[in-house]
This record gives sequence, C-alpha cells and structure tokens, in this order.
Amino acid sequence: MSADSTPANQSKLWGGRFDRPPNELFYEFQRSFPFDRRLLPYELAVDRAWAQGLRRAGILTAPECERTLAALDEIAGKAAAEPAWLDASPAEDVHHFVEMALVERLGPLGFKLHTARSRNELVATDFRLFVKDAARETARDTAGLAGALIEFAERAMGVPMAGLTHLQHAQPLLFSHAEPLFRDIERFAAATRVADSCPLGSGALGGCVVAVDRAALARELGFARISANSLDAVGDRDFAVDYLYALSTVATHLSRLAEDFVLFASTEFNFIVLPDEYSTGSSLMPQKKNPDAWELLRGKTGRIVAGLVSLLMTLKGLPSSYQRDLQEDKEPVFAAYDQATLMLRIATGAIAATRLNERRLRQAAADEALLATEAAHYLVRRGMPFRQAHEIVGQIVREAERRGESWATLPLARLQAFSPLFDADLPAALSLEAALETRDVPGGTAPARVREALEDARRRLKNCLAPWEGQA
Amino acid sequence: MSADSTPANQSKLWGGRFDRPPNELFYEFQRSFPFDRRLLPYELAVDRAWAQGLRRAGILTAPECERTLAALDEIAGKAAAEPAWLDASPAEDVHHFVEMALVERLGPLGFKLHTARSRNELVATDFRLFVKDAARETARDTAGLAGALIEFAERAMGVPMAGLTHLQHAQPLLFSHAEPLFRDIERFAAATRVADSCPLGSGALGGCVVAVDRAALARELGFARISANSLDAVGDRDFAVDYLYALSTVATHLSRLAEDFVLFASTEFNFIVLPDEYSTGSSLMPQKKNPDAWELLRGKTGRIVAGLVSLLMTLKGLPSSYQRDLQEDKEPVFAAYDQATLMLRIATGAIAATRLNERRLRQAAADEALLATEAAHYLVRRGMPFRQAHEIVGQIVREAERRGESWATLPLARLQAFSPLFDADLPAALSLEAALETRDVPGGTAPARVREALEDARRRLKNCLAPWEGQA
Amino acid sequence: MSADSTPANQSKLWGGRFDRPPNELFYEFQRSFPFDRRLLPYELAVDRAWAQGLRRAGILTAPECERTLAALDEIAGKAAAEPAWLDASPAEDVHHFVEMALVERLGPLGFKLHTARSRNELVATDFRLFVKDAARETARDTAGLAGALIEFAERAMGVPMAGLTHLQHAQPLLFSHAEPLFRDIERFAAATRVADSCPLGSGALGGCVVAVDRAALARELGFARISANSLDAVGDRDFAVDYLYALSTVATHLSRLAEDFVLFASTEFNFIVLPDEYSTGSSLMPQKKNPDAWELLRGKTGRIVAGLVSLLMTLKGLPSSYQRDLQEDKEPVFAAYDQATLMLRIATGAIAATRLNERRLRQAAADEALLATEAAHYLVRRGMPFRQAHEIVGQIVREAERRGESWATLPLARLQAFSPLFDADLPAALSLEAALETRDVPGGTAPARVREALEDARRRLKNCLAPWEGQA
Amino acid sequence: MSADSTPANQSKLWGGRFDRPPNELFYEFQRSFPFDRRLLPYELAVDRAWAQGLRRAGILTAPECERTLAALDEIAGKAAAEPAWLDASPAEDVHHFVEMALVERLGPLGFKLHTARSRNELVATDFRLFVKDAARETARDTAGLAGALIEFAERAMGVPMAGLTHLQHAQPLLFSHAEPLFRDIERFAAATRVADSCPLGSGALGGCVVAVDRAALARELGFARISANSLDAVGDRDFAVDYLYALSTVATHLSRLAEDFVLFASTEFNFIVLPDEYSTGSSLMPQKKNPDAWELLRGKTGRIVAGLVSLLMTLKGLPSSYQRDLQEDKEPVFAAYDQATLMLRIATGAIAATRLNERRLRQAAADEALLATEAAHYLVRRGMPFRQAHEIVGQIVREAERRGESWATLPLARLQAFSPLFDADLPAALSLEAALETRDVPGGTAPARVREALEDARRRLKNCLAPWEGQA
Repeated sequence: MSADSTPANQSKLWGGRFDRPPNELFYEFQRSFPFDRRLLPYELAVDRAWAQGLRRAGILTAPECERTLAALDEIAGKAAAEPAWLDASPAEDVHHFVEMALVERLGPLGFKLHTARSRNELVATDFRLFVKDAARETARDTAGLAGALIEFAERAMGVPMAGLTHLQHAQPLLFSHAEPLFRDIERFAAATRVADSCPLGSGALGGCVVAVDRAALARELGFARISANSLDAVGDRDFAVDYLYALSTVATHLSRLAEDFVLFASTEFNFIVLPDEYSTGSSLMPQKKNPDAWELLRGKTGRIVAGLVSLLMTLKGLPSSYQRDLQEDKEPVFAAYDQATLMLRIATGAIAATRLNERRLRQAAADEALLATEAAHYLVRRGMPFRQAHEIVGQIVREAERRGESWATLPLARLQAFSPLFDADLPAALSLEAALETRDVPGGTAPARVREALEDARRRLKNCLAPWEGQA
Repeated sequence: MSADSTPANQSKLWGGRFDRPPNELFYEFQRSFPFDRRLLPYELAVDRAWAQGLRRAGILTAPECERTLAALDEIAGKAAAEPAWLDASPAEDVHHFVEMALVERLGPLGFKLHTARSRNELVATDFRLFVKDAARETARDTAGLAGALIEFAERAMGVPMAGLTHLQHAQPLLFSHAEPLFRDIERFAAATRVADSCPLGSGALGGCVVAVDRAALARELGFARISANSLDAVGDRDFAVDYLYALSTVATHLSRLAEDFVLFASTEFNFIVLPDEYSTGSSLMPQKKNPDAWELLRGKTGRIVAGLVSLLMTLKGLPSSYQRDLQEDKEPVFAAYDQATLMLRIATGAIAATRLNERRLRQAAADEALLATEAAHYLVRRGMPFRQAHEIVGQIVREAERRGESWATLPLARLQAFSPLFDADLPAALSLEAALETRDVPGGTAPARVREALEDARRRLKNCLAPWEGQA
Repeated sequence: MSADSTPANQSKLWGGRFDRPPNELFYEFQRSFPFDRRLLPYELAVDRAWAQGLRRAGILTAPECERTLAALDEIAGKAAAEPAWLDASPAEDVHHFVEMALVERLGPLGFKLHTARSRNELVATDFRLFVKDAARETARDTAGLAGALIEFAERAMGVPMAGLTHLQHAQPLLFSHAEPLFRDIERFAAATRVADSCPLGSGALGGCVVAVDRAALARELGFARISANSLDAVGDRDFAVDYLYALSTVATHLSRLAEDFVLFASTEFNFIVLPDEYSTGSSLMPQKKNPDAWELLRGKTGRIVAGLVSLLMTLKGLPSSYQRDLQEDKEPVFAAYDQATLMLRIATGAIAATRLNERRLRQAAADEALLATEAAHYLVRRGMPFRQAHEIVGQIVREAERRGESWATLPLARLQAFSPLFDADLPAALSLEAALETRDVPGGTAPARVREALEDARRRLKNCLAPWEGQA
Repeated sequence: MSADSTPANQSKLWGGRFDRPPNELFYEFQRSFPFDRRLLPYELAVDRAWAQGLRRAGILTAPECERTLAALDEIAGKAAAEPAWLDASPAEDVHHFVEMALVERLGPLGFKLHTARSRNELVATDFRLFVKDAARETARDTAGLAGALIEFAERAMGVPMAGLTHLQHAQPLLFSHAEPLFRDIERFAAATRVADSCPLGSGALGGCVVAVDRAALARELGFARISANSLDAVGDRDFAVDYLYALSTVATHLSRLAEDFVLFASTEFNFIVLPDEYSTGSSLMPQKKNPDAWELLRGKTGRIVAGLVSLLMTLKGLPSSYQRDLQEDKEPVFAAYDQATLMLRIATGAIAATRLNERRLRQAAADEALLATEAAHYLVRRGMPFRQAHEIVGQIVREAERRGESWATLPLARLQAFSPLFDADLPAALSLEAALETRDVPGGTAPARVREALEDARRRLKNCLAPWEGQA
C-alpha cells in the first residue's frame, strides 16, 4: 500500500487502487465523522443485524458472529462512557470508525463484517433510523405544546377578547387554538411512514451479492418493510425531506403564534403578562422586559425552512443512484431537529407561564366597534338585504367618527335617521355577550361551542400520538 | 355614498364607512379578480350551498332561494360561454363579481346572499376545493408517468446497463425505477386529506351569526368534514403549502430523472436515442438535436420549489387569523399547478417515445471494471476477509491501469501473484450475467427479481389512486 | 422537409435533421414566445445592430441592409400598434417571430439576418438590455419611495414617538428613516454594471465565425463593454440573479416598513390614520378599515424572494455553457419586476397619504418607562458605575410595578432609599424633551441632529440616481 | 437582587426589574455565547475604542481608562491562550463575558465600560468587523481559485475540446474560463463597502446619551464611515445578507464548475484524470475512484444558498429597530463562511492537481458533427441565405445518420445533390483547426484570441483585490 500521511490510512475502507493518499485538507473536507458520529448507536444496531445476517448466509461462523457481537457491544459501551474516544478518532466516517474499532478488537475477523455491503446502504439505513426517532420525538414535543395551548385556552375560558383581522378590531372572540399543531403531528407520522423502509441488502446500488434475508434484517431493526428497489434505496432522501418539511410547517406555525404573543406583550396591546422566566432585560434600559422567547422562536423559523431549501436544492438535478452530494443531507437535519426541539419545549414552557391581563382584555373587548356586525344583522333580521345593512352601519360609523362620537351610544332618533328599522331593543342586541352567544355553530365563539371544541381538542390530543404507540 | 371614480364602486362589497374612494393604482394592486376568477366554478358551488343554507335558516324564503339558484346557474353558463365577460369585469374579486352579477339579475335580492358570511371563509372554501381537484389531477398525472416508466423498464428488460454511482461505472444494472413517484402520490393524498375540511360557517373569524347547518354545507360541497376552529379556518393555508410541497418533491424527482436522460442522451453516453418529437434543434448548428424536454423539466424545478418557499415566507410571522397577506397564496399555487401538469405530461410522452441504444448499452456494460466487486467476492467465497480482498483487487486494478492493460484479462499467474486464491474458475465468475444473477435479493438486479419488482410496481400502480376513487 | 402539423413549421429555425415534427404539447411546453415577446423591442434593436454588423463584414450588401432595417422598423411599428398580431403568432420564440416577419416582408433575404449568430447570444443580449432598463426603473421607484419617507419624516419633525425595541417601549424617538433604500439603489446600480456587457458576437458558445466588430455592436446598443469570454457569455445569468437579489432586499425592507405601518394602524397602537385611498373594508364587518396596502406589500415579499431562489436553484449544478434550463430565467424576473414596481409605487402613495395621529403619539411618548435610561444616567453622572445604576433603576421599576404605582412620580424620599444620589433636580432630568436632546450625536434623536440627518438624506437622494444619469 | 440559580447571574447585564430568574432551558435557548464567542477579538477592539471614547467624554478618568485597557489586553491574551476558559464560561453572550472578566479584574470599575452603550450597537459593530474580514478572506480565496483556473486553461492551450451545449457536441472549443469568479469578487467588495459603516454611538436605538466622538470611534476601528441613522444602525443586517448573497453566487458558480468536472471525469466522457489526492474510493467496489471533491462542492451549494434564504426569511416582516430575531443572523453567516472557505480551497487544489486526458479530448474533438456549422457557413460564403444553408446541412446530417454513414466524408457528388454550391475545396474548410481559427473575435476560440483572453484574465486577476489593498 502506498505511503500515507493521513492518520486514518492504516485501515481506510478503500485505497488499493490509489497511488497517492488524499490531500490532508481534502481528507478533512470530505470526512463526515465529526457529524455522522451521531449515528453511531444506529450503525451499531445495523452492524449487529448484519453480523447475524452474514451468519445465516454462511459468511460468518457462529463463533465469529458471537465474537463480532461481543465486540460491537464493547464498542457501544466504550463510546457511551468516553466521548473523548470519538473526539480523538481520525475515522473518515462512522462506518470506518466501527471497522477500525472492530479490527483493534478482533484482528482480521474485524475486516469481515463489511462483506457484501456498501456504505451507501448503511448510511441510508442509519439515517432512516435516526429520522424515525427524531420524528417521534418532535411529534411528542408538538403534542406537548398543543396540550399547553389547550390548557391556556381553558384558563382563558370566559375572558372575552377583541378578535383581530388585519390587526384591526374585528369581532369579539374567546381565546383558543391548537389546531395547526394537530396537522403537524400528522406530517411527522407521514415522514415516519416514509422512513420506515429498510434499505439494507441493496448493496452499492444493485442489490446484495449474498442472499441475505432482507425481511429478517428489517424486522430486527424495527422497520415496517423493506425497500422495493435497490437503486432508489441508496439515492433516495425523501424521508429526510419529509421530516424537514414537517419541521418547516411546525416552525411556521410557531412563528405565527410568536407574532401573536409578541404583539400581545407589547406596551400598546398589553393583553398578556410576560413571565420573568421566559423574558430577558436590556443591558441599557433598566425598565425593559422583552419577549425574547417568542422573538427567537420567530427568528429561528428562517433557519428551519432553510434546512428544507438546503436539501431540496442539494437534491435538484442529481443523477439517480448515490452521489456524494447526498452527504450534505445530515447536518441540515441534525441542526433543524436540535433547533426545533428547543423551540417546541421553550414555547410549551412559556405558554404555561404566561398570564392573561384580564382587565385589559375586557377593556379592549368592550370596544363598540366590535359590535358593528351585530348592528348590521339586527337590520337583516328585520328584513333588510345584508349588503344594504352593511352600507348603512358603515355610514353610521363614519358619521360618528367624524364627530368624534361613539356610534353605539347614539340616540335612537339619530340612528333611525339612517334606518327606521332601528328600535328600542337595539341596545340588548349590541351586547358583547350576545355577540359571543350568537356565533353558535360548531367551531364558533358561543361559550358552549368553545367548551365543546376544547373537549374535542383534548380528545384528539389523547389520540394524536397513536401512530407511535408501543414505540420507545 | 361618496363620489367614486372606480368603475366597480356601485356595488363594492364595502365602503359605507369610507369618505374617499380607493386610489386607482391601489385598487388594481389589491384586486384579485384577474387571478381568482379561476375559482369561479367553486365560488358558484359554494354560493349554491349557501343559498340553501340561508333558506334552511330562514333568511331566504324558498322562492328567493330558487331565484338565486337560477341566477347562479345562469351566471355559470354565461361565464363558461363568454370569457370576455370576465375579461371586461371591473370586479374586485370573484365574490364581488358574483354579487354584481346577481344584483344585475335579481335586484336587491342579490344583496342577500352574502348574509352572515365573510370573504375570509369564502376564499378559503373555494381555494380548498381547487386544491382538492388539483391534487387529484396531479396525482393522476404522476401515476401516468409512473406507468410510462414501468413500461420503459419492461421494454428494457434484458438490456444490461453500466450502473453508475458518482457517474463512475459501478456495477452492472438492469433498467428500472418509478419508486419515488409512488411516494409523491401519497403526498398528494395527504394534501387532499388536509384540504378536505370545510371552513364555511366560520364567518370572518369567530363563527357564523346565523345557525347554518355546517355539516350539511360541507356534505353538499363534497368535503369530508367541517373545520374545527373558526379562527384557524380563516387564517390557515396548510392545505396549499402541503400541495406545493408535494409538487416540490415530484419536481425534484423529475429533475433527477431529467439529469439521467440528459446524460444518457449526451454524445459521450449515447445510451438512448432522443425522440424527434420531444427534442429541438439549434438555429445555428444544423446537426444538433437537444434534449430540451428534459432540460426544461430540470430547470422548472427551481420555479416549483420557489412556489413553496414563496408561501412559507409569506406565512412566516403573520399573526393568527386572516391577514391580507394571505391573498398571495393563489398565484404561486396556480403557477405551480400549471407548470407541474405540463412537466408530468411532457415527461410521460418523452419517456414513451424514447428508445434505448441497446448496442451502446451492451458495450458500456461490457466494461470489466464493473466486475471488480465480483473478483473481490470470489476471494471472499474462498475465505479471505472482505476488506483484504477489496485491497487486493484494488491493487490489481491499479497495476493494470499503470501498464495500460485490462485487469480482467491478466493471465492467471499474474493474478496469483496478488493472491494464490485465484484459480481457473475465475473467468466464469467474472461474467456480466453472473454478476446480475448474483444480486438475487428482493429489489436486486437478478432478472427474476427485476421481473418480480416490475409486477409489484404494476400492482401498486393499479392501487395508488384508490384515495380518490369515486371522485370525478 | 418533413411533413409537420405545427403551424410554425414553415420557417422553424431548425428542423433539417429531424424526421418527425415536435409533439404539439411539447411544442407548446418549450415555446417561449408567450413571455419572451416582451423582449421584442430589444430583439429589434439587436437585429438592427446585427444587420449593420453583417454589412460591415460583407455578408449583407448595403441595399440588403437597408431593406432589412426598413423591414425591422415596419415590424416594430406594427407590433406596437397591433398587439393582437403577437397574440395570434405561432412563433416559437421572439427570434423566430422576427425571422418569420422578415421573410414575409423580404423573402429569402429575411433568412440572411441570422447568419453567424445564435439564439444563445441573442437572448442573453436582449435580456441584459431588459434588465438594464428594469434596474434603472426600479432604482427610480425606490428613490421615489425614499423621497416620500423623507417627506414623511419632515412632516413628523417635532412629534415625539415611543421608540420600540422588541415591541416594548424603549426610548423616545423622532420619526425618520429611508436609509435601507439608499443601499438598495446601490444594488440596482451594481446589477446594472454587471448587465452592462454585450455578449453579441459570442456565437452559440465559441465566438462568431464572421469577423464582426463586437465593440461597435456593443456601442450601438448602449453597452459599456463587450463580454470577455464566449462560453461564459451564453451560459451566464448573473446579471438576472443580481437584479432579483436587489429586488429581494428592497422587498425585505418594504416588509419591515409594512410591519411598522400595520402595527401603527392597529386599534391598540393607533399611531397613524390609514388613508381611505389605500385601505379597504370588510364585506362582513361594516366598521373595518384595513391596512391592505401594507399587508399585501408584506405578503408579496415571499414571492419576490422566491424569484431569487427560483433562479439560483435553476442554475445550481448546470454544466457551463448554454443549457435549455436557462429559459426559466425570464418569467421569474418579469414577475418580480412587475410586482416590485407596483409595490414601490403603492408604498410611495400610501406614505404620502398617511397622517400621524399626533395626539396618540404624544400620549404614548409620555410613558415614563421611556425615561428609565435617563434615571440610570442621572446616577452615572453622579459617579455610580453604570451597571449598578441600571440595577437600582430596575429595582425601582419592579417595586413600583408591584405596588401599581408610577416609578417616575415616587417621592424623592422613596427613591433615595434606593440611592442617596437621587436629588431634587431629578424631575428636570426626566423630561421627554431632555431625553431627546441628550442623544446629541450624529444619527441621534436630538432635534438638531434629526434635522441635519434629514438634510443629509435629501442631499443623498438628489445624487443616488447619478449612475443612470444621461440615460432615458 | 433576586435569588437566581443561573450561574451567570451574579453579573447578568440586566435583571433589576425581574422577580424570578430565567428558566434554565430558556437561559440556554437564548444564550449566544456558544457561537458569538467567535466575535471576541472584535468585541475587545470595540471595548478598547469605547474606553477611549468614555475617557474623552469625561466618563472615565485617564487612570481608569488605562486600567480598563490593560484588563482588556489581559483578557485577550488569556482567551487566546486558554480556549477552555471560554468553554467553561456561563456567560450569556460575548458582551457579558467581557464584563464579567473586567469586573473580576477591576471590581466596580469593570461595571463602567457599558456606560451609554447598548448590546444592540455592540453586536452590530462586532459583526460588521467580522463580515469585513470574512469578505476579504473569501475574496482572496476566490481570486486563488480564479488563478488556478487560468493556469489550468494555460496548460490546456492547444488542446481542442468538443464544445457542448445541452451536453450535445456543438462546436470545437479551447479550454478556458474564470470569468464568473471576477464578478463574485466584486460582490465581496460591495458587501465590504456596505459593512464598512460604524454603528457605534447609536445606543439601543436612539443615539448615545453621552457626546462620544463617533467619527473617532469609527476611525480607530478601521471603518470607512459612521452610520447615518441610529434606528437603522441597530436593526439593519444588510451587510450580512450581502455577504451571504456573494457566497451564494460563488457557490452556484462552483456547482456548475463541479458539474463540468464530474461529467468530464465520468467513464463515458473521460476528458480528465481525477487526482488521487482529491478523490476517494468505494468501500465495496475496489475499482472505483470517485470525484468526491466536486460532488461535495456541488452538494454544499444547497447549504450556502440556504444561509441566504434563512436570513432573508428571518428578516421578513420584522418591525424596524432591534428585535431579538436578529440574533439568528450569526450562525448562518459563520457556517456559510466556514463551508465556502473550504469549498474554494478544495476547488483550487483539485484544479491544480487535475490532468487533461489529451488523447481522449482530441478524439472527441475530431467528431465531424462539430463541423456542421462550418459546412453551413461554407454555403453562406457562396451566397446562400443562412437559414437555407442550415436546412440543407441538417438534411445531409439526417440522411447520413439514416444510412449509418459519416456526413463529412460523403463523396462530393452526393453532397452536390443537396446543393451545387459544394465544391472541391470543402474538405479544407471542414478542418477542426479552421473551425477554431475562424472564431476570430474578442472572446472567441481562435488560438490568438484565447491567448489574448488569458493575458487579460491574468491582468484582471492582479487587480481584482485592489479594494482591499493595504488591509491585513
């Protein structure tokens, strides 16, 4: 073998056909161990399954298999106990790391485990196992946040709120909402289903040269099925894209929730009291308490969506089969998973610690502008076509605004000048409570409907993790 | 009402509280009719359902309802027959267009249909109906392409191909692959499930002031269920994002397929014969036949993914509930749907018209480099640890390369200098046919496995549109 | 020539080497005339220059050149007068359109103009001319908005405002700011410089077979220089990416401005009065006046940035030289230019029509929380290290908040319990005016500094379009 | 001060107004020291300048200033010598780190340095200094790559190559091209100009309460000018976006270069010999040598562009002034800088080590298809309109293809059947050398022009770093 200054070369996984060793900077550039070491537990599980597979296929003897399994266990134990071992390793990637460690323990036997398999299929298998676990964790964290939001809404039951569209006072509303997160959890379930297919036995691209029992391998690793096509199996990263997509929608939903809370915490809105535990101050302005938790959540959305863009762009225009470009799949997924996990947990904690400023909410909800729609419907109930009623109430609002008056307290006579249909029972029809009660359809703001909706949400919350039931 | 130079103002859907009419450029800027007119068939369906709902709720009398339905039918007929009618309309949006047309036909009765409803819920309902139809269509087109690919693979059965990884000759392969498209079809099904929820009855954000039967409305419009939360219902665009995402993955898959075909069509690869019908020439170079179909498909991927980025970015940081920013959801979806529909159909046609250059494929597959893995496994089967066998074959390849020879035809004696395990039965083990046959695992390249895989793909193709069965 | 059902085939720019005509759907798919017809004025200018070039090179005689120029003029006139002519044309692209029209007018002579040139270089030249014009227009519109913002700030001079960070009251502020737009204008200038290089004479990829005078061609078309490398010239789209990038930053700046105005227009902030001319109402809620102009501006940002992502993704991984993927460059640029032009003009108009709610601004600015920093600096000026002063004022704020009092009006004795450095001159130090005056550094809020800054901004506004001076 | 379990609380930069300490997970979530510690050298430079500024403004005495400067030097020394010191620090951010270290050394005096300044302006200043340095470094690395490409082209002088468009043989070509990189270097210069503005003295958002000499501060820190508006100064991240954009275009250019090299290294093209030092092998297939360097470069493009998308999306819709979302600016910039630096250096090394496969290039360039354009121009020179000549040569190519013959060697008689203009001098006109020589315009492939172009490129290479001259 050629001389080689690269420390890892004694047992590089390739190199026979090369005259010259890799350039040192290039070796570092293409090395993935600094980040794919995170896949080590999955790699070792796959190695265990593969050792058994080679034994069943007659490549390893039973004792060789036993010794290999024991060595893999020892490696797992040492790696867990001594992170510095990994820090110091010059390994090219996680597969190389394990082979070096096996050879150190087993001598030439250590060189047998890689028989009839390719790093292309290994990394696809490891990464699918990671994504399956990550998607389950993120689904759980998302459910945790949904629970906190439902509880928040339950605490808020009975506190009317000025409903906003376009940030303008629109109609009175009762606090609620965890809906979008249920949709996100379904996306994590979908990503899991896509990931739940075992590529092992696909070889480099054309299938395994040894008749391994692919179904048994998949079963041992907890996969629901085997991949159908070896070429697709090594070049496909859909499962990672699906997971990044589910993270992108949950982040986008968080960014909207964050915007609500930043607004509600503003001096002008003042709808909520920011919890000290999830706020920070200013190094310059002593009075400040800032909604940093929500601002950071909102800001990080860009980074999560960027992870999705990153992988889609990397995949764009690649030929079928494995290309080294695919190595750029892992760091975006790891980073997005780490960020999103924190984001969901921080949002959950911050929601739980946030109190409503009930006095201020009631004051804002008392804005008579919120009742203009009720006035129009008062006319509709007396037979006026809606568009005409809308026009008349609009004119009343304008007229009152022009005079600096409140339209809702105009004397009846003045209102009757706009329409004779206005009558003495108008004030009763224009109460906040009536406005809330009136929206008595499923999903509406009538208190009974809100209670019903919250019960339904609780029910769904209980079931939303069903796709992962029975899993660690 | 105030003077108004805007042609549409006679019957604007709002305006009572305004002193001054909209600036003309602003009116054009915010007008959506030039693109949301595409939703007219859905709007009219929703209008019909709503008229019935108002009749059931006692807002419209039965004769009023009848007259309204008749007018809606007439509008539908006229719009279909005279596109110029829509071209000339100054309507602000599709809702305004219908109200103006109703009033023209029904007088004041035309102003009643908008009772107790909001454009916020209308556009959400219309757009969901559009996305449901679009997703079904795209799923069908995707299945069409999958069918063409399966048929292409069937035609290719028996033609060996040089399998590539990193664009380097890797191992022999048999043509095949429609796998990724099956995953895409599931994404369209998922987007459809998300879209399949009827927001009607959510009002502007807080629910309907009239006790309409939301379940009946949903049923009449073909929705699977009603939305659970009125605020979420008007501010949510997940269904559109999901559809754009499914388009993004299918486009990314097409870009990879396109890269394969552009490569295979190159003068150097020459694996396929480009069909005249899907190629164009050069205005300057008379000999050129260019794979334009595939290049355009590959290039358009950027635009499809950009549609997804566009909507995610628009949604980022919006407060809950309806904001006018949401109007920017439709053009990206319409554009991506139109482009993707063409892309899928062109790819389907181009695949069907493409012939393999069988002679050239056989020549490339005869490259002995493809058999180096077989040589290593020859040694493994004789007991050598795989890594050592890999190293030895690598050295043989290097040595032969250095001398400008073919390693596969070196005399046995020379090979035995590298390992005494090489023997007279080596040539038989190094045949292309043996290499293909050896990969005899599910999903592998052994001809029987490929046949099996193609049958399985046919079976799945038959079932993949099941989620839409029974739908127009 | 082969039979051909495609209407355009009589004079297709290629086709001799083809047996079968293009599939009809494919022909439509790859046709660019529906959008590149927008380049017709530029194409005709390039054609005029090329005709002269061929004459100088001896390919066209002087009379042939004259007749060609006359025909080009006639085509220009007819295209301007009769858009329907273009609507009805089956031309493949703008180059084909012109050749067909020339042949119709000149017979075989019309076939001579395309001598020694390629559509690859033509479209690059046309598109550069478009981008140069577009960048100049957008720069002017951006300057228009900057002017409106400066004027708005001038009107606001003297109205104090509660300065916000994290949407929390931070420190008092005076209205101002057009800074980011000056940076955007420089980006348009940079994009223009990149576009200002003439590719004509590059041929398909390797240079022109006729010794045309490239410098003369560039000069006649108003380019600053000729391209340096023929291969780069036909495959490069940097100028379009640069323009899309400049649009992306200006859109991002607009989205931030829009967020400010949406917030300021909210019922809770109420800092500004929305102009009727740039607002719309609700079809359901008669009282609503919504900041639609700003919401749409904010929402469209996603689409503009998506244009940039689109082209970068299309370019990613393309081989050097011309590939048909590059055809996907134009629609994103056209769409982004059209949208951005409207956005800038609407923002300009909306700003000009917006009034400050001075009463409400003064009330918010009177919030004593804004003066906490002044209290800390009061202590600093009396010798206390800043961090300690910050801590003490923070404690005072907390104590007052806990008791529901205003810290700024606590009796001196109570304040002295926190620090004996507080003294009778404190109230004078805590005035809003003093706080504004104190920030007396360049760029600060001291009124004199604001006046100075506005004068400086006016000066820069006058000069910012200098790079385009002397151009139409 | 309130009880606080957070280790850093003794000297947190805020906290007086808080009752409860931050939640631990939240504290970690919002902490930036793990990544902004990278800004420490810049922070210390700014601190030195600020200490002098406070001295000049009379806030620090001369001895206090001296002691502070000495402590800052000591901190710089220790940080450089003991990275573990930073690893172990519980500091919230780099500003907090320095204040804690100062207080440890100076007692209460350490609390004075933060007088009249805000972290908002500090981080903006530090980050601008970082981006200025990064942009200079990346520009240099880009120039390094341009140099390697020019040298590669010089080595290739005289080796003809089959020029490709659409991956089809187009016209003969001579190797060359570093053009796009010169444009990238100008983008780094532009980003530098934007970054070169000192925000120091802007306070939190409204300017400094102490009359510091902003111009002196800027001068000491090497900035070209001071920022014009305090509110813009703290909320603006254009300089970072500009840098990310310049990285995105250079990465996109690299991805195209990479595609070329991956193609040229393919078994089928075989135009270049991959250097062992920049290639890796397969763990399974002993014969493989893969163009990993180029594949990774191409794949990483997605991540670089994603950094740009990330920051644009984070900025979208933020209110003016500082929001905590802006903290999400640094990690994308750091990551993109690190990746791009490696990418450029690896590309430079790989180019330098790559050899042309001259034999194979000559063979491909001998393809007569490349001369079809010459045949058409042969007819043009004899008076035939170009389009007709193009059509005739196309028919000849088709006819020859149909018969499996080479069109360029058809007997003259057969050719004359297509056009009587063909004559005995045709073969001379159809030589590769003639084809190259003919393209004798600036930027064309005539050898003299290529030489001229390379000299021009050398000249520009020498000058392209001029904007940074005189800088470290």
